[in-house]
Amino acid sequence: MRASVPLIFDLFSAAPKTQLEYDYDGPSMKTSVPGPRSQNVGAVNFFCNYEESRGNYLVDVDNNRMLDVYTQISSIPIGYNHPALLKLMANPNHLSTLVNRPALGILPPENFPDKLTESLLSVSPSGMTRVQTMACGSCSNENAYKAMFIWYRNKERGHNMPSDEDVSTCMINKAPGCPDLSILSFNGGFHGRTMGCLATTHSKAIHKLDVPSFDWPMAPFPRLQYPLEEFTRENAQEEARCLEETEDVIVKWRQKGNPVAGIVIEPIQAEGGDNHASPDFFKGLRNIARKPYRIFNTWMGDPSKNLLLAEVLNVIRRENLLEEVTRSGKALLNGLYDLQAQYPGILSRARGQGTFCAIDICDDATRNSILLKARDKGVLLGGCGDRSIRFRPALIFKEYHVHIFLNIFNDVLAEHK
Amino acid sequence: MRASVPLIFDLFSAAPKTQLEYDYDGPSMKTSVPGPRSQNVGAVNFFCNYEESRGNYLVDVDNNRMLDVYTQISSIPIGYNHPALLKLMANPNHLSTLVNRPALGILPPENFPDKLTESLLSVSPSGMTRVQTMACGSCSNENAYKAMFIWYRNKERGHNMPSDEDVSTCMINKAPGCPDLSILSFNGGFHGRTMGCLATTHSKAIHKLDVPSFDWPMAPFPRLQYPLEEFTRENAQEEARCLEETEDVIVKWRQKGNPVAGIVIEPIQAEGGDNHASPDFFKGLRNIARKPYRIFNTWMGDPSKNLLLAEVLNVIRRENLLEEVTRSGKALLNGLYDLQAQYPGILSRARGQGTFCAIDICDDATRNSILLKARDKGVLLGGCGDRSIRFRPALIFKEYHVHIFLNIFNDVLAEHK
Repeated sequence: MRASVPLIFDLFSAAPKTQLEYDYDGPSMKTSVPGPRSQNVGAVNFFCNYEESRGNYLVDVDNNRMLDVYTQISSIPIGYNHPALLKLMANPNHLSTLVNRPALGILPPENFPDKLTESLLSVSPSGMTRVQTMACGSCSNENAYKAMFIWYRNKERGHNMPSDEDVSTCMINKAPGCPDLSILSFNGGFHGRTMGCLATTHSKAIHKLDVPSFDWPMAPFPRLQYPLEEFTRENAQEEARCLEETEDVIVKWRQKGNPVAGIVIEPIQAEGGDNHASPDFFKGLRNIARKPYRIFNTWMGDPSKNLLLAEVLNVIRRENLLEEVTRSGKALLNGLYDLQAQYPGILSRARGQGTFCAIDICDDATRNSILLKARDKGVLLGGCGDRSIRFRPALIFKEYHVHIFLNIFNDVLAEHK
Repeated sequence: MRASVPLIFDLFSAAPKTQLEYDYDGPSMKTSVPGPRSQNVGAVNFFCNYEESRGNYLVDVDNNRMLDVYTQISSIPIGYNHPALLKLMANPNHLSTLVNRPALGILPPENFPDKLTESLLSVSPSGMTRVQTMACGSCSNENAYKAMFIWYRNKERGHNMPSDEDVSTCMINKAPGCPDLSILSFNGGFHGRTMGCLATTHSKAIHKLDVPSFDWPMAPFPRLQYPLEEFTRENAQEEARCLEETEDVIVKWRQKGNPVAGIVIEPIQAEGGDNHASPDFFKGLRNIARKPYRIFNTWMGDPSKNLLLAEVLNVIRRENLLEEVTRSGKALLNGLYDLQAQYPGILSRARGQGTFCAIDICDDATRNSILLKARDKGVLLGGCGDRSIRFRPALIFKEYHVHIFLNIFNDVLAEHK
């Protein structure tokens, strides 16, 4: 059972070069874990030294070096401080990506579709040729569910526009606008902890307890017996039973007026206990439904964003940006008041705090036309509400930027007079 | 109205030095927007050149340079390519943060609490001394709602442990485990698009249409008349009316068995039309409730993560990691089979695909003891399900790592025999 090969031999003959450069040669423990420097840990396991962590080894603040077979809940795919990633992040060409996080849905970088083709789409399952990125797994699932509901209702409407009743009822959370539709999930499944995802998660009570949920159905996930080759017949029967119950549940929820719009399942139930099922089971499920699906991992927060925030605050203090923005905001609002007096047929309700300002336009069509014309003249503005324009400049938006804006805005308004 | 100060004067006298270095001197348009290089834009506005964007100016792929008064839906706080951020990200000391994203809730970096004190907590409202980071605004709100529900139910239970009925019903989405409780929100509010947040969002039908929702109450947000000083009495009446209706709605939902556990409101309704209310309104609301709350912004995906993914895939290909992981996975599973034969009273159901493996332990207490003992010996393992251990090594987990693991695991099991 025990490996007879000495560690030093493994490392210096079998390991490829890049591995050598950044992996350690074995665990090294100085204290029990959590150690004395991981004091007041509360809910966390212990505090880590990510700078000193390498390859398969996580180092904690007490200099304990641990072989990591859990990798941050399965989210460090090629180990700690991989030289290729360090080199990538040290490349000055990538600095812009790190500091200018875009609103991807509206203002993607030039090469983003190509980058997705090179990355996600290059490893997508055969036949899946499109991808929609989201910031995390829960967000991906929430949006996948919404896509299923929208698809289902669209089909029910015969691809016609939603009715006035659809539109008005949805604003107050009522059917038919917010329909009684459900997502079918499996006992033991884990799909995230936001409220839509959580209604399909059934792995542990601690995730779900005390949180309101939806009346959505749950089907049994096969419980296979091992070793598989000794229980071929029993396992096939178990999978057949689960498929049968899945069909029954779908019929039952349709009958009670809350039909199943989609099904979500993990290829391997992980959080629920690493439960596997055979390819036959998934093919059987595919025959019942039509939508294959995948699951990703979840993180909480992101230290690299916090690094940015801390420096943002330094800059705000160093450059007195709060003073600056108070001054620019006053200039902006005064300019809007002047324009409002000049174009009473177009503008009203100029308002704001600092540079966080807005103004109403006479109607929706004029507002949208102003937004487009301003953009063509080099000013990017945002709409909000039925017919408002909102201003969200950066904190380095000075008085002279206000004047550049007001000049162009004035030109645009003159064309609408 | 028009600014009479020439642009060149503004820039070279009024602008502080750091501004000079990276801001442009004005808009510069080459084409209409979207221009010819922003072809096939679909739902997006246009494609951007973030490398060439500077300060207040967003540059698109057609080299149109626009003064940006919308800043990626208000998410570029100190402008594009700020030198301080570029310098921060180019600092080799921060590389580890960029490439080792931790599961913060369990394995935070050593200095993370200090970093939060230096950043978020240094600007938190007076009296708010704790912070919980999340990856985005929707996730923050979802978790705030869950915190309110958990707090409410905990109070109802008199801080006793949940009953067996609570625990069993929550697993199938039923009361009392998943209680009938609601969050009160305001007409015109926007709090995100995940399903919990979406039930409190009432800004546009397009966000909500076709998505199942909760029976949660909505109160009116004040609609102020401008200029404020001319409508003092009317606006005070409007705010009083809204507070009164808020109280009525809380009573009504309590009476129908779906009590309000918490209230969510924006300090300024942004997406809903930049609607303001007076400090008196918020103080009045505070008197009705007890929980102040704030809202953040949302992004979709993150190109810097995609940059990492593309390089991860390069490494996987270059180092033949799929072949490697197949080999290590086989060694791991064979080792687990051997141990299972050696310790039949402790281990069962060894299983896996590649190195994505798991094994069951005789009971929960033994499993947890094994996890802790293995950790103290330098091996980090994860639990899942009632009594399973799951293995989630990195893709650079070689056969010799398997042997290091198996030796230590064997020692731990010998102590439990």
